[in-house]
Amino acid sequence: MQSVPELAALQKQLARIHECIALLNWDQLTYMPQGGAVHRADQVSTLAEIAHQLQAGDKMAQLLEQCEQETSGMEETSDTRRMLRLARRNYDRTAKLPAKLVADFTRHQSVSYQTWVRARETNNFQLFAPLLQKTIEYTHQMIQHLGSFEHPYDALLDLSEPGITHARLTELFSALKPALVNLVKKISLSSAANQSFPFLQGDFAVETQHKLTLEAVKEFGYDTSCGRQDLTVHPFCTTISRGDVRITTRFYNEWLTRGFYASLHEAGHALYEQGLPEKPIGSPLCNAASGGVHESQSRMWENLIGRSKPYAEHVLPLLRAYFPQSFQNISSSQLYQAVNLVTPSFIRVEADEVTYNLHIMLRVELECALLDGSLPAASLPEAWNNAMQSYLGIVPPSDTEGCLQDVHWSHGFGGFPSYTLGNIISCQLWQKMSEEMPTLNEDIEQGKFDHILHWLRTRVHCQGSRYFPEELMTHITGSTLNVQPLINYLQTKYTEIYQL
Amino acid sequence: MQSVPELAALQKQLARIHECIALLNWDQLTYMPQGGAVHRADQVSTLAEIAHQLQAGDKMAQLLEQCEQETSGMEETSDTRRMLRLARRNYDRTAKLPAKLVADFTRHQSVSYQTWVRARETNNFQLFAPLLQKTIEYTHQMIQHLGSFEHPYDALLDLSEPGITHARLTELFSALKPALVNLVKKISLSSAANQSFPFLQGDFAVETQHKLTLEAVKEFGYDTSCGRQDLTVHPFCTTISRGDVRITTRFYNEWLTRGFYASLHEAGHALYEQGLPEKPIGSPLCNAASGGVHESQSRMWENLIGRSKPYAEHVLPLLRAYFPQSFQNISSSQLYQAVNLVTPSFIRVEADEVTYNLHIMLRVELECALLDGSLPAASLPEAWNNAMQSYLGIVPPSDTEGCLQDVHWSHGFGGFPSYTLGNIISCQLWQKMSEEMPTLNEDIEQGKFDHILHWLRTRVHCQGSRYFPEELMTHITGSTLNVQPLINYLQTKYTEIYQL
Repeated sequence: MQSVPELAALQKQLARIHECIALLNWDQLTYMPQGGAVHRADQVSTLAEIAHQLQAGDKMAQLLEQCEQETSGMEETSDTRRMLRLARRNYDRTAKLPAKLVADFTRHQSVSYQTWVRARETNNFQLFAPLLQKTIEYTHQMIQHLGSFEHPYDALLDLSEPGITHARLTELFSALKPALVNLVKKISLSSAANQSFPFLQGDFAVETQHKLTLEAVKEFGYDTSCGRQDLTVHPFCTTISRGDVRITTRFYNEWLTRGFYASLHEAGHALYEQGLPEKPIGSPLCNAASGGVHESQSRMWENLIGRSKPYAEHVLPLLRAYFPQSFQNISSSQLYQAVNLVTPSFIRVEADEVTYNLHIMLRVELECALLDGSLPAASLPEAWNNAMQSYLGIVPPSDTEGCLQDVHWSHGFGGFPSYTLGNIISCQLWQKMSEEMPTLNEDIEQGKFDHILHWLRTRVHCQGSRYFPEELMTHITGSTLNVQPLINYLQTKYTEIYQL
Repeated sequence: MQSVPELAALQKQLARIHECIALLNWDQLTYMPQGGAVHRADQVSTLAEIAHQLQAGDKMAQLLEQCEQETSGMEETSDTRRMLRLARRNYDRTAKLPAKLVADFTRHQSVSYQTWVRARETNNFQLFAPLLQKTIEYTHQMIQHLGSFEHPYDALLDLSEPGITHARLTELFSALKPALVNLVKKISLSSAANQSFPFLQGDFAVETQHKLTLEAVKEFGYDTSCGRQDLTVHPFCTTISRGDVRITTRFYNEWLTRGFYASLHEAGHALYEQGLPEKPIGSPLCNAASGGVHESQSRMWENLIGRSKPYAEHVLPLLRAYFPQSFQNISSSQLYQAVNLVTPSFIRVEADEVTYNLHIMLRVELECALLDGSLPAASLPEAWNNAMQSYLGIVPPSDTEGCLQDVHWSHGFGGFPSYTLGNIISCQLWQKMSEEMPTLNEDIEQGKFDHILHWLRTRVHCQGSRYFPEELMTHITGSTLNVQPLINYLQTKYTEIYQL
C-alpha cells in the first residue's frame, strides 16, 4: 500500500498545475490586457505540457500498476479502487496523446479563442473559419490516437460523459425529440402564444444587477468568501481551488433576466464545486462526476428552482427592492409567466426550457457533420441557418447571433451533449427530491434553500466522481438515465402556463 | 553552438513558469477570495518547485557547461557570453539551495503575507512575529547553502544587486548619510518649515483618482493595452509577460497625492519592464539589471519628473480638470511647494525625497540586526520606534504605521538597499540626461515625455541585464556608483524651496 500515497502526491501536484491553468484562463477572460494574449497562450501551453508529462509519464504508469496490484483484493466499490478506476482512465486517455500534439492544440485553442472573440464582435465568421478547420484536424488526430471506437463521437463523449456512447445518446435523444417537437407545436398554436412582458425590458443599471444577482446566489448558498463574480463575454464557472470557485456573468442594461439567470446558472455549477469532496486534494474522486451531472446542478438552480412558481413569489420583493420602477405593479404570477415564455429564439443560453434541447441537438448534429467531413468549416453558417429554420422556424440575422454565439467551438467538440444530459438528470433528481422533501415548494417560496442544498450535497456533491453518470442516477434514484421525468416536468408545467 | 538554442528553450520554459507565479501572486493581492489563500500558497509552491527543478537540474548543468565550452572563444561582452554569465549565476545560486527548502520557504512566504495583512489591519505585531522569526531562520539556512561571504548580508545583496557588497554599500551610505542629516537639520530650522498645504487634503473620489492617475501614467508612455492598474494594500508592479505589465496602487479618499505618486512610481517600474528587450523570450538578458536600477526608473518618474517645477506647471490643468474645487485657485508654485514638503513622517512610501533614504538606512540596520541575532523578532517594534526617534525624531503611534507598514519582511530580507541605490542611480542618470537634453525642462512643462522615455529606452532599458549596476553606470555615465549627483540634486532643489 506504499504506492497509493505516492500516487496521491503526484495527483495533487498535477491538480495544482491544472488549478494554475484555470487561473490563467480566468484572467485571460476577465482582466488580462490585450497585449498579453500571445504570451498567455504560450504560458498555458507550457503548464499543459508539464501536466501532460506528469499525467502520462513513466512514474505515473509505474505507480498505477503498483497500486492496482497492491489493491487487487479490495472491493471495486472501495474509495481506493474507485480512485484507481479514474486514475487509470486519465492516464490511458492522456498517455495515448503525444505531448507535442497536446501542447500545439492548447496553443491553438488560445489563439482560436481570441479570434472567436474578434469574429463574434465584428460578425465575421470567415475570420474564425480557418481556426475552426484546424480544430477539426486536431480533433481527428486526437481521436486516432485515442483508439478505435464504434463511432468516432464515442471518443469525445467518453471524455466528458464516462460510460455514455453515441448509441446511448441517440437512444435518449430519440425518445426526447418527438415529445419536445410536439410540445413546441402545441404551445405555438395556443391562444397564449405571442404574449409579451415588457416589464422585463427597461433600464437596469449594471451595478445594481451585479448586487441583485450576488444577493440571489448567496441566498442559494454560494459562499463568496470562497468565490467571486466577474463579467465576461460568455458566463462560466471555474475552480481555482476548492476554496476559490469563481463565477462570471454578463449584464445587459436593457434586459434584466439574461444576466440574472446566467448568474443563477453559474451559481448552480459553483454550488456543486463548493460541495465536492475536499480531500485527498487532487484525487480524481474529488472531481465532478461528468459534464452532464455538472449541468444538472446549474439547470436545477436556474430552472427547476429559479423559474418555478414559488421562486417567483420569493424573488419578487427582491426585484422590487433593486428595481422598484419595473416591478412595483407586477404580480408574482406575471413574473412567473414572463420568465417562462416559450418562443423560438437565436441564443441558446437564453432559450426557454422547451426549445433549449433543440438548440443542443442542432449543435450535436452540426459538429458530427464537421467531424465526418460532410460539412466544411467555411459552410457552417449556411448549415446553421438551415438547421435553425428547420428546427425552430427562424434564421438568425447575423452569425454573431448564430454559429458564432457559443465559445465551445473555439476550444473543441463534444461538449454539447452534456447540456441535454444535464436537463435529463436534473429532472430525475428533482423527481426524487420532491418525493423525499414534501415541503420543497414552501421552502423555495420562503427563500429557504438550505434543505435543497443539503439534499444535493449529501446525495450528489459528496459523491465526487465515485460513480459514472448512469451509475450515479441508479445509486440515487434507482433508475438509469431516463428522459421521462424531463418530459413530464415540461408537459405539466407548460400545459398549465399555456392552458394546452 | 547547438547547446545555446537548447539552453534558450529551457530558459523560456522556466521564464513562463515564473510568469505564471507572477499571475498567481498578482491575483492573490487583487481579486482572490479569502478562501483561496491556503491553496494559493500550495499552488505557488508547486510551480516554484517545478521551476527550481528546471533551474537547478542536471539538464541545466550540462547545457551550461556545454554552452560555456562552445562559446569560450567569444568576446566576454558578446550577448551570448553575457547571457551565460547570468545563466551561470542563476544556476549556481539555485543549485546550491535544496528544492525542499525553497518550496517550504515559498509556502511560508505566502502564509506569512496573509498573516502580515491581518496583523497590519489589526495593529497586532505579535500575530506576525513568529512568522518573521521563521523567515529569519529560513534566511540563515539559505545563506549557509549559498556559500561563505565576507559579510552574511553580501549573500542577500548579491541576489538583488550583482556586484554590490556590504562593504561597498557601507561606503556609499557613509558618504550620503551626513549630507542628508545636515540637510534635514537645515530645513527643520528654516523659516519655511512647518508649512502646510491644506488643498492636498479634501474629498477626492476614488473613481476619479483612478481616471486621473491612468491619464497621467499614459502621458508618460505607459501602454495600457499591455498593462492595467488595480488596487492593492501595497502598490506594486508585476510583469505577467512582456505584453502584460501591471501596476497597482492605493487611493485615499481624503488625500490625493499618496495615490497619485504611488501610481507614477509604479508606472516608472512598468515603463522599464515594457522597454526591456523582448527576445529571446526568457533569456536572462531580457531581465532588469537589478532592483536598484529598477528603482532608479520608478523614482525618476515619481520624483525627478513628477515632483519637478515644470511638471507642476504641466499637471495643474489636469488636476483642475478632475478636481476643480481643490485646484481652481492654486498656482503651480504652490503645487510645487506642496508636493515637496520635507517633514519627518512615519510611512516610507510617502516620505519626502530628503528623509526617504533615512527610512531605508533604518530598515537596513534593523534587518542586519534581525539576521545577526542581536534583535529578536518579538522586539522589532521597540527597536523600530527607538530608531525612528533617533533618525527622524518621531515615534509612530502604532505598528501599522511602524514596523508593519512594509510588505517586504513578509517575504524576506535584503530588498531595502535597492531603494537608496535607486535614488543614487536615478540622479546619476538624470545628470547625464540633462547634459544631453537641453530642452528637458521645457519638454516636461509641455507634457512631452517621449524624448525622456526614448533616452531611457535607448540607454537603460534596451540593455536589459547585460551590465551589472556599477558596469551600467560606467557604460552610460562614465562613472561608477556615485552619491554626489543625488546630494547635489537635493541640496540645490531644497535650498531654493526652503530658502536655506
